[in-house]
Amino acid sequence: MATKELTQKIEAAIENISGFPKAGIEFKDITPIFLNPELYKEIIEDFANHSFGKIDVVCGIESRGYLFGIAIAVALGVPFILIRKKGKLPPPLVSQKYDLEYGSSEIEMRAGQLKPGQRVLIHDDLLATGGTTEAAAMLVEKQGATVSQFSFLIALDVLKGDEKLLRFTKDIYSICHY
Amino acid sequence: MATKELTQKIEAAIENISGFPKAGIEFKDITPIFLNPELYKEIIEDFANHSFGKIDVVCGIESRGYLFGIAIAVALGVPFILIRKKGKLPPPLVSQKYDLEYGSSEIEMRAGQLKPGQRVLIHDDLLATGGTTEAAAMLVEKQGATVSQFSFLIALDVLKGDEKLLRFTKDIYSICHY
Repeated sequence: MATKELTQKIEAAIENISGFPKAGIEFKDITPIFLNPELYKEIIEDFANHSFGKIDVVCGIESRGYLFGIAIAVALGVPFILIRKKGKLPPPLVSQKYDLEYGSSEIEMRAGQLKPGQRVLIHDDLLATGGTTEAAAMLVEKQGATVSQFSFLIALDVLKGDEKLLRFTKDIYSICHY
Repeated sequence: MATKELTQKIEAAIENISGFPKAGIEFKDITPIFLNPELYKEIIEDFANHSFGKIDVVCGIESRGYLFGIAIAVALGVPFILIRKKGKLPPPLVSQKYDLEYGSSEIEMRAGQLKPGQRVLIHDDLLATGGTTEAAAMLVEKQGATVSQFSFLIALDVLKGDEKLLRFTKDIYSICHY
């Protein structure tokens, strides 16, 4: 678990912007974190400590999930697999559709990169309603791998995204909670 | 400059997919590189060696430019600034429009993250026609900073993207050339 000191440093770095992307929403901008390489390294160390010995591969969700996900994988010495939005990765692919508030979307991973039986960490920067993360977990399971952990820099607890994820694993780790 | 050994390892990892995203194009898929954390670390070390002492900040272009860009910045101990497509970052912003083959596009950066006078490395995974990278360089210069270096994992030399970039700096570094 992250120290209170680390959590406070992250919260101080995050910028809260009211009314973006639409009225009534307070956007949490994490980009100031990347201005501070020392803070970034502390965050990666914390994520890696939580996952060490428990996973075989990290799957990161485009595109902010790459910013921490690749470094977590390197710190753990395990492969990193990119999950992208439909149309960006070349075939052969494994895909998963999911519903949005209006309409639907689809995420993809290159086929063959994930091996059956591997223990997977699914990482993204932010857990909101959990729809994309749930689809990522279904994408992992349909390839015979196991979702062992989820990790996020931020969880917006009021949106209860974890309720969509608990059927995969109870190990849902977020450094900051709002 | 990258050793021949490193270049060959990267070329062996990259997957060439014919006819993606459209007929006549051979797509270079770099995702297998991220399955091999040791190879990834060697690449970061090579990029960092090329830039050490020469830059104050790394600007990475969404989204594959983040995969190496953030690690280069951390290795150098300098800030990393995200360049994103229009509409994804909250205000206040600095923007730059640019022309595509059909129509136009726009990239953005949070205002105030880049400081006047800073020496900038602009990083992306691939140099193709150079349109987006040129726009990124214009975005940097309009804030009073200097483009000191460009770096790419791959340059598609036949498309002559470097011709759009030479007016900013002659220091254009690519590990693999096709």
